Amino acid sequence: MQGAGTIGIVGGGQLGRMLTLAAKPLGFHVVVINPSPNSPAAQVGAEEIVADLYDPKALRELAKRADHVTIEIEHLDAKALETISKKGTPVNPSASTIQLIQDKFLQKQALKAWHIPVSDFDAVINEDSAVKLLKRFGGKMIIKTRHGGYDGRGNMVVMSKSDIQKALKLFGDRQLYAEAIVPFTEELAVMVARSVTGQVATYPVVETIHKRNICIEVLVPAPVSPVVRRKAEKIATKVADLLGSAGTFGIEMFLTKNGKVLVNEIAPRVHNSGHYTVVANRTSQFEQHIRAIAGLPLGDTSLVVPAAVMINILGERDGPTLAEGIDEVLKIPGVSIHLYGKSPTKIDRKMGHITATSRTLQQARKNARNARKKVVI
Amino acid sequence: MQGAGTIGIVGGGQLGRMLTLAAKPLGFHVVVINPSPNSPAAQVGAEEIVADLYDPKALRELAKRADHVTIEIEHLDAKALETISKKGTPVNPSASTIQLIQDKFLQKQALKAWHIPVSDFDAVINEDSAVKLLKRFGGKMIIKTRHGGYDGRGNMVVMSKSDIQKALKLFGDRQLYAEAIVPFTEELAVMVARSVTGQVATYPVVETIHKRNICIEVLVPAPVSPVVRRKAEKIATKVADLLGSAGTFGIEMFLTKNGKVLVNEIAPRVHNSGHYTVVANRTSQFEQHIRAIAGLPLGDTSLVVPAAVMINILGERDGPTLAEGIDEVLKIPGVSIHLYGKSPTKIDRKMGHITATSRTLQQARKNARNARKKVVI
Repeated sequence: MQGAGTIGIVGGGQLGRMLTLAAKPLGFHVVVINPSPNSPAAQVGAEEIVADLYDPKALRELAKRADHVTIEIEHLDAKALETISKKGTPVNPSASTIQLIQDKFLQKQALKAWHIPVSDFDAVINEDSAVKLLKRFGGKMIIKTRHGGYDGRGNMVVMSKSDIQKALKLFGDRQLYAEAIVPFTEELAVMVARSVTGQVATYPVVETIHKRNICIEVLVPAPVSPVVRRKAEKIATKVADLLGSAGTFGIEMFLTKNGKVLVNEIAPRVHNSGHYTVVANRTSQFEQHIRAIAGLPLGDTSLVVPAAVMINILGERDGPTLAEGIDEVLKIPGVSIHLYGKSPTKIDRKMGHITATSRTLQQARKNARNARKKVVI
Repeated sequence: MQGAGTIGIVGGGQLGRMLTLAAKPLGFHVVVINPSPNSPAAQVGAEEIVADLYDPKALRELAKRADHVTIEIEHLDAKALETISKKGTPVNPSASTIQLIQDKFLQKQALKAWHIPVSDFDAVINEDSAVKLLKRFGGKMIIKTRHGGYDGRGNMVVMSKSDIQKALKLFGDRQLYAEAIVPFTEELAVMVARSVTGQVATYPVVETIHKRNICIEVLVPAPVSPVVRRKAEKIATKVADLLGSAGTFGIEMFLTKNGKVLVNEIAPRVHNSGHYTVVANRTSQFEQHIRAIAGLPLGDTSLVVPAAVMINILGERDGPTLAEGIDEVLKIPGVSIHLYGKSPTKIDRKMGHITATSRTLQQARKNARNARKKVVI
């Protein structure tokens, strides 16, 4: 079939899978690059180029086959993506957006320059500069690697000179910066889409709950005041404009005790905190991303249910995947499950997620947690 | 990944495609039989056995690979399915359910025996018996082939002896029966699911609108009184019990001027009149079918929107598929589109569908019709 064209995705994991599931009904073909065969995306009909995500030859091949190139992960070769784009295949989000986000220090600087509220931060040059920052930030701060950190990796909370020494030793010669610790009451997130035409659409403000630095639970809508909600939405829209390129972006935020909303981090792609949109919203974040990068009009982002809670299904052991208890999960009213088809399972590997919808957030959360307990994976 | 198992589907068209899209997130593998490669189902990740649907070898191969065998079309070899089932692979709906439905005359007889209201009907043995029936049915009736008719094929309205002669000539030596014409005010449909455990769940009553005997529009919920709604739901539940086996079934009905609800026809499978459930209901008819045949608990069938209208995208010409106007469709609020990935396009071939959701049926219908006009296919 002609008409819609081909979407090329760098990465074929669960995000690539859900992007594929959204792209197919719109009439698109999908090709992904994935380091191993039978990726979650390939299992739902994406063609697969089996190669390292940094492989320039594979990226060229992807660009050759695709009308629109996009990503499901930001840890990749932004320069190679720029080359593709210069040769004529549109890449969204753009290489420069990805580059900006890859360097968390530059990301924070850009946000600050755009008058988007962020926590205090500064570069760590050496032990001395770190010790000075620790004093400035009140005796407690996080040292972070500028590149490559995720799910808490590449972060270390320090409270003393000896902590700083440990961090510098651990991170070796990697570029570092430090952030003041924000005494937040809640972590919030907003998915925001920006189309290649400049159209912007925000999703509801949600609360995210982390454990061991991994997002485990998302509450929709976030139990916050209308004032906070509007602040968060306004910030998300501003960030989308700042980034300039197209796609769906996850904006992670802190809500402080005195009602301030600070941006913590940006994901230049569909995001775990937006998985709920598949069952809870008129247009999912995945369909929205495809629409955004392909220049199609953005869809209605409103909720079709009063409340939803998403819970991740993280691997509980190392070994072949064996999902049990699904029948028990589906007995619970308003609960759905998505398993990503990954094998093997590993401790804390994202294997799937559960979404519960209900009339109240409280009931949805109760049902989601109850459902999660039934799954053995 | 282990755990869920493999679903085998006889047929890989749009219904197989949407069943596959629903089965994958639940952790199932999917295998389909389809006469040509790159079927709509294979495009979303179903493995494909390329063979005629009547090929007994292909059916045996399907049974070997699958834990649960099901169908997306009722025109197939019910006896071969029975053999598979006897050899140990569960087939749902069962071969006997399919056989009953394949013969429209037996279907009607069974409904009547179960005290489910149907229009007057009787077997056509020869010209004489047909002429007598025409008198009995008030001078106007439909002669139908007992087997193999769909979308109006195998049906002929007769009003005279010479019409009858024409019909008998057209249908040759095929087994026939005649039905009185029901002066209906609306055509209704209810999707109903019955699980292998006997659990039954009905979907909302919808109005279906046909053109050239093809379903073109579905209005959700049907604009009927609560009394009619309850009647239709009760009939659907009774039919599910009558059929006995598992799956999602489409029950097509007539609503008469004086408020009677008669069953017109049963589809022993997911059905065009239930496509709206993908965006409008908590659990789609496709996920429900997978749950039903795999012995998983049935899902919540309630609407998550006040109103929805589904419009089929039928091919407008013969030739390679070239879907245009999708961007115009997606501009309309609350409208989504599903293209089935079929090529070539043919006049009246089902190429995709549009679903519009809105606060009122009137608005949804306006948006759906407006959207349909934008598509060139």
